[in-house]
Order: sequence, then C-alpha cells, then structure tokens
Amino acid sequence: MSEAPKKLEAADIQAMFDRSPFIGFLGLKVLGLDHAASTFSARMPLRPELERRAGTKQFHGGPVASFIDTVGDFAIGMLVGGGVPTINLRIDYLRPSVGDYIDATAVVRRAGKSTAVVDIDVFGPDGKLVAVGRGTYSPQTA
Amino acid sequence: MSEAPKKLEAADIQAMFDRSPFIGFLGLKVLGLDHAASTFSARMPLRPELERRAGTKQFHGGPVASFIDTVGDFAIGMLVGGGVPTINLRIDYLRPSVGDYIDATAVVRRAGKSTAVVDIDVFGPDGKLVAVGRGTYSPQTA
Amino acid sequence: MSEAPKKLEAADIQAMFDRSPFIGFLGLKVLGLDHAASTFSARMPLRPELERRAGTKQFHGGPVASFIDTVGDFAIGMLVGGGVPTINLRIDYLRPSVGDYIDATAVVRRAGKSTAVVDIDVFGPDGKLVAVGRGTYSPQTA
Amino acid sequence: MSEAPKKLEAADIQAMFDRSPFIGFLGLKVLGLDHAASTFSARMPLRPELERRAGTKQFHGGPVASFIDTVGDFAIGMLVGGGVPTINLRIDYLRPSVGDYIDATAVVRRAGKSTAVVDIDVFGPDGKLVAVGRGTYSPQTA
Repeated sequence: MSEAPKKLEAADIQAMFDRSPFIGFLGLKVLGLDHAASTFSARMPLRPELERRAGTKQFHGGPVASFIDTVGDFAIGMLVGGGVPTINLRIDYLRPSVGDYIDATAVVRRAGKSTAVVDIDVFGPDGKLVAVGRGTYSPQTA
Repeated sequence: MSEAPKKLEAADIQAMFDRSPFIGFLGLKVLGLDHAASTFSARMPLRPELERRAGTKQFHGGPVASFIDTVGDFAIGMLVGGGVPTINLRIDYLRPSVGDYIDATAVVRRAGKSTAVVDIDVFGPDGKLVAVGRGTYSPQTA
Repeated sequence: MSEAPKKLEAADIQAMFDRSPFIGFLGLKVLGLDHAASTFSARMPLRPELERRAGTKQFHGGPVASFIDTVGDFAIGMLVGGGVPTINLRIDYLRPSVGDYIDATAVVRRAGKSTAVVDIDVFGPDGKLVAVGRGTYSPQTA
Repeated sequence: MSEAPKKLEAADIQAMFDRSPFIGFLGLKVLGLDHAASTFSARMPLRPELERRAGTKQFHGGPVASFIDTVGDFAIGMLVGGGVPTINLRIDYLRPSVGDYIDATAVVRRAGKSTAVVDIDVFGPDGKLVAVGRGTYSPQTA
C-alpha cells in the first residue's frame, strides 16, 4: 500500500533550498505557496557572482533560467514531498533582468501521472515581466 | 558605412568568459572553435557550489542550462564580436550530469539577419549525451 | 514617413482566414478580440480529415499545433495589419482533444520591436485545458 | 510476462499513415528507416489545401509542424509498434518551405523508459534546411 506523499510547507522548502549547494548559492527565498491553487513563488536576490557584467546589476541569463527551473520544480515538488526531475524547460527572455532581486511565480497547468507542466513568470523589482518559463517535470514522489 | 565585425578567437572568448562575473564563477574553459563550420565547444568543471546535492558530483540543472546558453551564445558571438542576447532557449535533460566536468558543443543551424538558431549537445566525462539545448539568439554585433 | 498599421477587426481576420487555403481548410472561426488587452480567440470545428483515428472525434495533434500557431499569430497580426512570420513555436499536449470543436485564446506576453511572445491556451468543449502553446513571432507590419 | 513490441517496417508505417485521416490527408510517404540508427524519414507532397497563400507553393507552417510531429513520432513508434503520444514539441521555422514537396528526417537522441527525445530536420526540394523540430514523446507500446 502506497502512502500519500507529505505536502511541503514554506519552511520545509526553504530548508531544502538552503541545503542544496547550488540553490543555496543562488540564495533563493520562498515568498509563498498555495497547495489548492498549485502556485509557488520565490525571490532571487542579486549577488555579484550572478551579474552578466560587473557592476551593472543585470542578472546573467543563466541564473534566471536556474531560478525559473527551481521555482517550477517546487510548484510540483511541494505536492509530492521534494524536488522532482526536470524533463525539459523553455525560457523566453523578454527584458533585461536588472535590480536588487527578481521574483518568480509558478502555476501548475497540468499535473498528470507521469508528467506535469508548469508555467513560471519572472518579474523585476518594478513589477515588469522580464522572463517566462514553461517546464515539464516528472512528478514522482521525491 | 558599417564595418565587418571582428571574429573572435579562442583566447578572446576565454578572456570574455573570465571577465563575466557569472561565467567566470562557472569557470568555463574554451575547448575549440571553427568559424567555417560554425561550431564552438567548452568545458564546465565541477565546483562544490554547482552540485545538486552536496558530495554527489551531480551538477544541478541550473548550471547545465547556464552552460548550454553560454556555449550556444558564443557559437554566434564568435562571428559577431561578443555575446549576443538570447531570445529563447529549450533544454532537455536526458541523463544526470555526474562527474568532474561536462563538455558542450554548439553548432549554428541557421544564422539569419535578425535571429539565429543554435543546437547544443552536452556530454559527461564518459562521452554519454546528458543534455541537449536549442536556442534562438539575436545576432546583432555586440 | 511610416504610417501606423491598420488594426484588424474580427471580420477582417475572418476574411483572411477564409482566403488562406490551409486556414480555410481548418475552418477556423474568429470568436473575439480585444486590442487593448492583446487577446484573440477562435474556434476550430472538427471535420473528418482532422481526426487522429477515424470516428473517434479526437483531433490529431497536427491540426491542434496549426490552430495554436494561427491564433497566436493573429494576436500580433491584428495589431500590425496581417499574419506575421512565426520564429518558433512550443506546444504541450495535456489531454486528448476530443469533441465537435476546440477553442483557443491567445494573449500577447511581450511585443518587442523585433520579436513578440504569445501564449495560447486550448480548451475542449467541456472547458478543460487540452493543450498550451507559446510562440515567438516577428511583428513586422504584414 | 511482457512481449517485445513488434518493430515496424516501412510498409507497416505507410499503411498506418494511409489509415489515419489527418496523416492520410497530408499524403505523407515513408522514405526510409533504420532501426539500429533510430532514424526515420518521410516526404510531404504539396497539395493546394496546404498552401499559406493560394498559388505560391509555400507550405503553411501548420502542415510543416504536423509533418515534424508525425515523423518524430514514428522514429519512436517504429520501435514500439505504433504511434505514440507527443508530450511536447518545439518547431523553429528557418526559411519559407516552398516547392512541390518537403522531406524530413528524424533521429532519436534519447529513448528512456518514460520519455524519448527526437530531433527532426526538414529540407526543401533544393536540399536547404527549412525547419527543425525537437519533440518529447511517451514511448509506451502503442
């Protein structure tokens, strides 16, 4: 008999973020989640190593993609008890990501048995949309 | 009258990599390039901050995506004199990326006036394909 | 001196649909549009040639992709006076598309000078989301 | 005890193509396949309903996407005995597809237990690359 997976709360995910070497390095902070609406949001503060060019406060696209992947992942992961494998990920860069932080919100569009599709929007400190992501994840219990 | 852009050699790109805060952090090393064939390759060594879980030698998907984006970018960038904006990017994760380094090779599939499409393959130390990327870039002179 | 492009109304687009051999074959019907909100929606009725297997009322994925592309295209096209080139297109199939018709709604996420990004959601007759698309278009005046 | 799926030969796939209402309408012709190399190729002849504008001999992007999806699908399908569900698909349009036919070749990049990734290249009658596709399929026995 299989047990229902433990749903994760914000503090659980923050602890997982802090424990992961790469996510910890990015310094992601959980902003909120809603299990019923299948939404999850987090913030990525700027640190000098994340800049595209030194002193510009513009995030390199790599950390933006990493942020999108992780926020999308935990929109599913919070339902199944941990991070899940990413099958594939699409990123569209809409504007330069400039500022002291960027925020992302993920919403699950479809959670199937073997695959799940998640949309992720990323906003700058001025509230403007800077990038969008769409990921397919493998929602097996972590 | 517009001047032809300066084509970049391996040492030029390595200097640009080292100067970029994020690419420098990733520690990317240029492996080779071929202007005529429009191919470019590089290596990303493992460092502890890039791991998915501490001590596993498995790269987190974020650095893999960042690596793919950067190698694809410079397959165009080497022709136009510097890094170019990424319009969008698709990453497919095929196997866990485990080892002391991963290598990527990019090939330009089509270089149009306003957009260029590049394929990027990523291999583990054992030569197995671990991820593939396809990116659309804006190939204006940097 | 360049002239502002003529914005298209529903009847203009319907006439363009009917004139295009392939879109006319698909039989697309304009449902509505909102220039200010940058949204456009249309319906694709089932016809026997569009089925995956005869008699199942399930649309083949090809017409679904074609429908997504066209509806996304005219969410930009209605602002610039005609159909625009698709740079690339991503389709996620979430559920079988079964029924006498499917509906799609497109929303422009970002309209830049040289590229525009559009999201397209497709719904079955029961209102369930059956597929999602995201396209990058070249929004030059048609 | 589960049985190994029946591998499909060219004639088997052609019969399946002809039986499918939509693929039959497109008129796809199998060109060749290689089970060991995991490659599959086919041709799509022009017919008036597939044109973007009447009389131009330019294929609409929708049939090109449909062709890519189908050829990618059977690169996996030939190994497992029939068409398989498409999870998602990316299409990049590189040049207008003009002529009496277009050809596509698919190669499996990775066939996992629950997902497979396939690359599809499309060529015009002059041998120029006109579009590329990358799809993720669900390779369960059909």
